[in-house]
Amino acid sequence: MSEGEAWDRLRTARIGHMASVNPDGSPHVVPFVFAVNDRTIYWTVDAKPKRTRELKRLSNIRSNPHVEMVVDGYSEDWGTLWWVRARGVARILEPGKEWDRALTLLSEKYEQYEAGPPPGPVVAIDVTHVVDWEASAGDG
Amino acid sequence: MSEGEAWDRLRTARIGHMASVNPDGSPHVVPFVFAVNDRTIYWTVDAKPKRTRELKRLSNIRSNPHVEMVVDGYSEDWGTLWWVRARGVARILEPGKEWDRALTLLSEKYEQYEAGPPPGPVVAIDVTHVVDWEASAGDG
Repeated sequence: MSEGEAWDRLRTARIGHMASVNPDGSPHVVPFVFAVNDRTIYWTVDAKPKRTRELKRLSNIRSNPHVEMVVDGYSEDWGTLWWVRARGVARILEPGKEWDRALTLLSEKYEQYEAGPPPGPVVAIDVTHVVDWEASAGDG
Repeated sequence: MSEGEAWDRLRTARIGHMASVNPDGSPHVVPFVFAVNDRTIYWTVDAKPKRTRELKRLSNIRSNPHVEMVVDGYSEDWGTLWWVRARGVARILEPGKEWDRALTLLSEKYEQYEAGPPPGPVVAIDVTHVVDWEASAGDG
């Protein structure tokens, strides 16, 4: 797919999966919701009750800001499989203009946030590489 | 959820997302299909044409065998969200009894493999920790 199409798929995906690295060097992966602005991906810690371990992704990026996320569409027809991976560097935002913009983007994408704006923190991932894959016709 | 239910969700999920760590210490994440036997998760490189980078997960686990995978169900009703994460240590199998058993399990779970058995290699992940999360009633 073209780079434009890869970004379209990143922008419109409802759910992604994000990997970070634990301080002991092992990987961590969770599903997450996010919004895209230009080449930056935003997500936030929402108001749902979280156990402490849920926030491991935050402490991980404080010690190692390198993250990778993937969006994809699973289908039982394996000839239609695809994924787009985005690698980047995460920044934990301070309240301010970019924080407000990120929450606006998230609320525009997900009406679920209308019930109450998420309290944050807000994280930005500045994407440095995008890689895509799709099953070619005839793979089956 | 109970540990039994967490394993049931791992066993029956059609797709998971697996994170590994690149030699430079950055994370890598891809969707993958897998089968579960007892506390071990099996996946294989199938016959679809792969670009070299697709096999990064294999070279990664040769240098760092720690992996984590997650299964989850996305729904626009965020009150029903859940995930199960399994952390473990990966082994690249040699052809033999466990390899054959893994391919049988994968073919039983995915009729897509019936067209032709995947060539391998086959990877086993011995799970050491399982963590689950689900939105409580009323989260919305």
